[in-house]
Amino acid sequence: MAPYFVNSTDTLVSDALAGFARAHADLLSLDPDHGFVTARAASPHRRVALLSGGGAGHEPMHAGYVGRGMLDAACPGRVFASPHNRQVYEGSLAVARAEGVLHIVKNYTGDRINFGIAAERLAHRGIPCARVLVDDDLASDCEQIAAGRRGTGGTVLIERILGGAADTGLGLAELQQLGVRLAARCRTLAVASAAHTAPTLGKPAFRVAAGELEYGVGIHGERARSTIRHAPLARLVERMTGELLGALAPRPGTAAITLVNGLGAVTPLELYAVHGELARVLDAQGIVLARSLVGDYVTALDMRGFSLTVLFAEPADLAYYDAPVHTAALRW
Amino acid sequence: MAPYFVNSTDTLVSDALAGFARAHADLLSLDPDHGFVTARAASPHRRVALLSGGGAGHEPMHAGYVGRGMLDAACPGRVFASPHNRQVYEGSLAVARAEGVLHIVKNYTGDRINFGIAAERLAHRGIPCARVLVDDDLASDCEQIAAGRRGTGGTVLIERILGGAADTGLGLAELQQLGVRLAARCRTLAVASAAHTAPTLGKPAFRVAAGELEYGVGIHGERARSTIRHAPLARLVERMTGELLGALAPRPGTAAITLVNGLGAVTPLELYAVHGELARVLDAQGIVLARSLVGDYVTALDMRGFSLTVLFAEPADLAYYDAPVHTAALRW
Repeated sequence: MAPYFVNSTDTLVSDALAGFARAHADLLSLDPDHGFVTARAASPHRRVALLSGGGAGHEPMHAGYVGRGMLDAACPGRVFASPHNRQVYEGSLAVARAEGVLHIVKNYTGDRINFGIAAERLAHRGIPCARVLVDDDLASDCEQIAAGRRGTGGTVLIERILGGAADTGLGLAELQQLGVRLAARCRTLAVASAAHTAPTLGKPAFRVAAGELEYGVGIHGERARSTIRHAPLARLVERMTGELLGALAPRPGTAAITLVNGLGAVTPLELYAVHGELARVLDAQGIVLARSLVGDYVTALDMRGFSLTVLFAEPADLAYYDAPVHTAALRW
Repeated sequence: MAPYFVNSTDTLVSDALAGFARAHADLLSLDPDHGFVTARAASPHRRVALLSGGGAGHEPMHAGYVGRGMLDAACPGRVFASPHNRQVYEGSLAVARAEGVLHIVKNYTGDRINFGIAAERLAHRGIPCARVLVDDDLASDCEQIAAGRRGTGGTVLIERILGGAADTGLGLAELQQLGVRLAARCRTLAVASAAHTAPTLGKPAFRVAAGELEYGVGIHGERARSTIRHAPLARLVERMTGELLGALAPRPGTAAITLVNGLGAVTPLELYAVHGELARVLDAQGIVLARSLVGDYVTALDMRGFSLTVLFAEPADLAYYDAPVHTAALRW
C-alpha cells in the first residue's frame, strides 16, 4: 500500500471533498452529483460570478478559495486531471449572476478544452461567459512549448484580486480585462528536491539525484527546465527572483505582491527563510514588497519543492487584494 | 546536501524567524537578540499575558499563534530543542501584564526545566507567573513513561480557548485552572507512514517498512507505541478515535472540538478524508462535532503522518474558542 492515508486511491478525491464540505459547511456546499463546490455567501454588489477549477492534488486550490471575496464556485477534477466540461457547465449555471460568469482557467490543454465546451453551452443558454487564462509559469516560457506557459501559483493572487474587484460591482468585460492585465504582470518559478508520490504507484513520480534540484518544475511533475546543483538558499532565491524580474521588467518603485508557495512537503521554516531572501533581493532592486503570502497555497501532492510568484500591482489591484476574504484556506 | 532548502542547517531557524517577522510585520515583532516574538496588538481587557514556546520544527506552532486573541509571545528553540530559560524570562518580562504571565508548556523535560527556571526568576522580580502543562498525547500514557504524556496537537486548541478567555479579562488563577481543565479533557493520537528528514543528516530519522505505520508516534519522531499494518483510512480512524474516546469517556451529547493535523508531508486531500471519517465516527457515538480544524497546525518537520485531537468542551469553552483571532497561522 502506498504511503497515502486513503480508503482507496479511487475514492481519495471524493472522500476528501465530503470531509471538506463537512468541515466548512458554514462557508460552502458540495454538489456531489455534479461535482462542484459553491459558496454560501457573497457580496450583494457582485454582478459576475467567479468560477475556477482544475485537477485535484493542488489543494487548497481551488475549493479552498470558494467563499466570500473570492470564488463563487470551484470544479475539482480527479488528481492532476481537468474537471469534465459538465461540471463546469453545471457549476456555472448554479452560480451565474445577472452579468454572467467569469472562468479563471489555468493554461493546460485539458482545462482549456473543458472550460471551452462549457462556455459554448452557456452561451447557447444565453448566459454571458468570459475567460481569464492564467499562464504564469516562467519555466514553460519557450518556443518549444506550443501550448504556452502553464498556469500555477499566480492563480491564487489573481483570484483574490478579481474577487475583490467583483465585489465592487465590476462587469464581465471589466473583470476579464483586469484578469488579462494581472496575468500579464505575474510570473512564477518552481524548484523541487524530491518528486511527489504518485498515488496509484506509491512511488516518487520522478527521481532527483542527491545534491541536485529540478529547476522550473511544473505542479504535476512536468519535466523541469533544467537540473541544477543544490545551492545555498540565498543564491537559489537570487537566481529565481532575478529571472522573474527579468521577465517582468518592473521599474524601480513598482509594488509587488509575492507568494512563497510550498508544493507539499517543504516545511514552513524553509518557506519563511525563502521569503526572507526574496525580500532582501526585492529591497536591493528597489521593488516595494507591498503584500506577501507564505505557505502551501497551490501544491503538487507531497512534492518537496517551492515556487516563487511575483505579481506587479497597480494601486487599484492592491485595494482589491485587501478586500475581505472568507474562504477555507484564506481569510482576511 | 540534504533535501532541505537552507543556507545552512545552523541558520535554518534564525533565517526562518527573520523571514517570518518580515512577512508578518503588521502582527508581530521579533527580538532577535533575546529570541522571542511578541504581538503588536492585544485586547485592552487582557490582564494576563499568554506565552508559549518550544523547539522549532513544529511550525506554525508556536510563533504562528502570536497575535490578537492568542499568544502575547512565543519563544522558539532550535529544531526539536527547548528554548533557553533566558528566552522565556526575557519574553515574559517583555509582555507581562498587571496580573502577570501564564506559561503554556508542552510536557517535555527540557521545556519544563527551562520554563521552570524562568518562572523562578520572574517570581524573584515580583512578576506573578503560572503554568498550564499540556500533556495530550495518548500514546505516551503508560506507566513506563515516568515523564507523563507528551504535549502535542492539543496545544493549539488550548491556546485558542485560553486566548479567548484572557480577552474577557480573567485573572491568572482562573486562566490557569481553565487550562488545567482543558488539558484534562484533551487527547491526541498520531500515526506516520514515513519519518521526517533529519536536517543535519539529510536522511529519514527512522525507517518505516513498506505497508506499515508507526502508530502513536511523537512530534519529534519519538518511538511509536507500536508498528501496525497500513489499513484503509476508515478502519484506522475508527481505531484512533475509539482510543481517544475511550480515554476521555464523554457522555453522548458532549460537544467536541477536533483537530485533524498534518505532521508535514501529508496532503490536504488526506487530511480532509480523515476529517470525514472522524465526523462519521463521532456522529455514530452521539458526540456533537461542535468545532473543527483541518490542516498543518503542529508539525514534525516533513513527517508523513497526521494526528487526531479531540477536546471535549463546555459551552463557555466554545464561546472563548469563537472569539476573534488574528495571528499568522489562524484567523477567525
